[in-house]
Amino acid sequence: MEKKETVTNSCGRILPKYIEGYGEIRPFLGAFETGPIEENEMRIVTGFQKPGGEKLVGTIKEALEKSGIKDGMTISFHHHLREGDEVVNMAIKAIRELGIKNLKLAPSALFETHKMILESLKDGTIRQIEGSMNGSVGRATSEGKLSSVAVLRSHGGRVRAIRQGDLKIDIAIIAAPTADPYGNANGLYGKNACGPLAYSHADSLYAKKVIIVTDNLVKYPAIPVSISQINVDYVVVVDSIGDNTKIVSGTTTIQSNPISEKISKFATDVVEHSGYFKEGFSLQAGAGGISLSVVKSLGELMEAKGIKAAWANGGTTRYVIDLFKKGLIEKVSTCQAFDLVSVQSMKEDPLHLETNIDFYANPFNKGCLVNLLDVVILGATEVDVNFNVNVNTHSDGYLLHGIGGHQDTAACAKLTIITVPISRKTNPIIVDDVTTITTPGECIDVVVTDVGVAINPKRKDLIENLSKTDIPLFTIEQLRDKAAELAGRSYVKPKTTDRIIGIVQWRDGTVIDVVYQVDTNKDEK
Amino acid sequence: MEKKETVTNSCGRILPKYIEGYGEIRPFLGAFETGPIEENEMRIVTGFQKPGGEKLVGTIKEALEKSGIKDGMTISFHHHLREGDEVVNMAIKAIRELGIKNLKLAPSALFETHKMILESLKDGTIRQIEGSMNGSVGRATSEGKLSSVAVLRSHGGRVRAIRQGDLKIDIAIIAAPTADPYGNANGLYGKNACGPLAYSHADSLYAKKVIIVTDNLVKYPAIPVSISQINVDYVVVVDSIGDNTKIVSGTTTIQSNPISEKISKFATDVVEHSGYFKEGFSLQAGAGGISLSVVKSLGELMEAKGIKAAWANGGTTRYVIDLFKKGLIEKVSTCQAFDLVSVQSMKEDPLHLETNIDFYANPFNKGCLVNLLDVVILGATEVDVNFNVNVNTHSDGYLLHGIGGHQDTAACAKLTIITVPISRKTNPIIVDDVTTITTPGECIDVVVTDVGVAINPKRKDLIENLSKTDIPLFTIEQLRDKAAELAGRSYVKPKTTDRIIGIVQWRDGTVIDVVYQVDTNKDEK
Repeated sequence: MEKKETVTNSCGRILPKYIEGYGEIRPFLGAFETGPIEENEMRIVTGFQKPGGEKLVGTIKEALEKSGIKDGMTISFHHHLREGDEVVNMAIKAIRELGIKNLKLAPSALFETHKMILESLKDGTIRQIEGSMNGSVGRATSEGKLSSVAVLRSHGGRVRAIRQGDLKIDIAIIAAPTADPYGNANGLYGKNACGPLAYSHADSLYAKKVIIVTDNLVKYPAIPVSISQINVDYVVVVDSIGDNTKIVSGTTTIQSNPISEKISKFATDVVEHSGYFKEGFSLQAGAGGISLSVVKSLGELMEAKGIKAAWANGGTTRYVIDLFKKGLIEKVSTCQAFDLVSVQSMKEDPLHLETNIDFYANPFNKGCLVNLLDVVILGATEVDVNFNVNVNTHSDGYLLHGIGGHQDTAACAKLTIITVPISRKTNPIIVDDVTTITTPGECIDVVVTDVGVAINPKRKDLIENLSKTDIPLFTIEQLRDKAAELAGRSYVKPKTTDRIIGIVQWRDGTVIDVVYQVDTNKDEK
Repeated sequence: MEKKETVTNSCGRILPKYIEGYGEIRPFLGAFETGPIEENEMRIVTGFQKPGGEKLVGTIKEALEKSGIKDGMTISFHHHLREGDEVVNMAIKAIRELGIKNLKLAPSALFETHKMILESLKDGTIRQIEGSMNGSVGRATSEGKLSSVAVLRSHGGRVRAIRQGDLKIDIAIIAAPTADPYGNANGLYGKNACGPLAYSHADSLYAKKVIIVTDNLVKYPAIPVSISQINVDYVVVVDSIGDNTKIVSGTTTIQSNPISEKISKFATDVVEHSGYFKEGFSLQAGAGGISLSVVKSLGELMEAKGIKAAWANGGTTRYVIDLFKKGLIEKVSTCQAFDLVSVQSMKEDPLHLETNIDFYANPFNKGCLVNLLDVVILGATEVDVNFNVNVNTHSDGYLLHGIGGHQDTAACAKLTIITVPISRKTNPIIVDDVTTITTPGECIDVVVTDVGVAINPKRKDLIENLSKTDIPLFTIEQLRDKAAELAGRSYVKPKTTDRIIGIVQWRDGTVIDVVYQVDTNKDEK
């Protein structure tokens, strides 16, 4: 095999200069080192409606035909319904019936419920996925079952890519809990209300054709207008777009166990003494069980100390809504609802704002919300001694999670806290070198484990503030050693082939890491 | 003088092929005959914000300097505050202090309160106006005081021009009754609440630089987000952006006089028997006194007959809100509030929707709201025997009004009714040939005067339906004769020079008519 030309990015990852199915790579240079490449954003006029036009069509298949679906196109979806989504499956079924091949799928994320896609990978319907992959599809990708390399982006990075033309969507298919016949849609009403339709907002603006799929057609105009008629070509009514009770996934409930409780206590202590815990601060917590637990205990602290947050952003859960209702958080902005309590709050409270992802996290607009974030609490699959964080792969090398807003919030928040157990079963979690770098160490301020806390040495202010407390502080190397001790072994990089199956973009479009196909033959375990 | 090459448009207007300061003209071909010219819409990335960036600057002058203001640029404004706006004046003052010359002004509309602009026309600060001109600025334009030709567009046409790149805005200055330090803005709250910020929505998306000027800075995030932070460069706080009590102008109150009452009765009768007056119909009425009077009497009819409208759009007034509150109109969409009752309703009622102008009326998106409109009631300065309507000039040739949504609604509504007195003082209003064609006769269905009603002969269905009633029906020629009789004279075209001072675009960007400089020397009256 020919030796490929390589380039080393600023995290030290050695990357090929060119990747088949992706093209030339731009290496990651630092969290804020790369600006917009192109001066121009293109928006193509792909149809306009005169009076008398109709948008309602009978079936998804018909809408796809009217949209001019062809081999090789790029089709996008959102994941607001998470494990309860049925629209991806319905669309793929229609596409297979039409005999269309070689598609690029550009979902904001795929879940276990979409495992029927595996058939479409085999029969050549789908060639490539640009989007997050949770569960079986990620597993299949890791085993080399996609014919082209997968591209992973953060939420903000996905919108940046769409707006910059890196990700050109031919047809956006948008599951809508409520829509009117002219294409206005929202996620607040209907039997499958899921909250915002934020992931699809950019798709609706920039895709050539836009299809709304709804199970709740209402009289014109559907209010609120999360997706606007001015961007919609067709509306399809189906019996059911899925099951919204499944937007509550395993990652969005509090884990009550001693490890989680310790982490939660340490993280709350870190926030309290960080210097950022003051009247009017802002807050985001991820959907992981530990993050939620931190929200809960932080809320108790806020109540005890009489401190109110100006706003919280999320991935919103009932734990945040609880503080919002108590007046401990003044305003809530939501780009994804993680439970039905959050959906209900969006309907009831005008101070609960639906934010699209451009607003939330696009690094190349005139100012996204995460730029103003004080404190974010995030999870990880692994953290290394350079504070680099992995959220995409497991220690066995399998690509099983998306990036979500991890990069966006970590890069921008004034205080970025990673909460992880120091080990999981026999896997040490604080390691020498993460399997995959999702977020570079320069963006991480504090790592909180059940054993103790490590502060990024560059944050001398935090070291000073937290040294005065009884929080058990360690160097990251000490945590690594403790992790190995508790797991009963040091970390070993998983065995992989030299075929790249996934590219992890930084939010600015540069490449921060690549994921290799797992070596299923040599893996003896 | 050289003879210029001309072209005749489909209304029979003879136009020069080329106009200095405008370029080649594309002649009007019919209400729906011209589609988008360009396949591509350009959006230029003109700055992006990293964390830590500040948008608050001390003065409008400073914001203009930071925006890189230069001679020859195009500066835009909105007119939601109508006669109560002070921001245009403050900005022009700052621009004059900076010594900037040769600007193109692209307001959605100018009013009498902006007459200080006349000084800026004299000293060369302003070269050209693309936007509606009411009052003194229009008068000055008519007298040839602008060095370059003015361009008039409908509301929908303006957004089309911005999105298509025909109107490239360098700096948009947006008066905001409420804003936060990161640029989110709305018109619902604050001492100068004016309702929507709809006119500026496209400006905020497409202008290179965007400046928010507010007199009510609130904590982040300002909700609702009518103008989004992701498009805003600078925020300036001033003592006062104007006086919102002046959004109620003379054209937005009911005139109670016998002529108005007759017109109102006939128009209501026309709607009732047109075939469109049924459960779930949709409705828009202009801001003219007569239109408002029709809304009122139509509301009484709806109540009497037990018929509810699905929605009403506007230019919204308390007369519409009254029907909304009574449940006679289910939903209201508003792109301009004509009084504070309407502003209050937008705050209180989630079924009262703020619509931006792209949504309302852009002919080149995937479906604007007016496409679905059943009934619209509009005013006019003149109507001719071809049903062509003038709303821009008076019979003396002076350009004193903008187009507003006249073209957009007239072209799209299923029933377009023009309400006019048959004569005004000694001016006949139904004439052989209007001074200026704003909206072509093909879009007009019924002309209602205080003397009687004329139906466009192409609407055989309406002729059949209305012939069965006691509405006094005439041919349009009969109305013209009655007009001349009552005015005591036939219509005479105003004396003009051969210099074109204004171009009236159709909503699709073609030219439907031009306006000539009035001949102030020869005019003896």
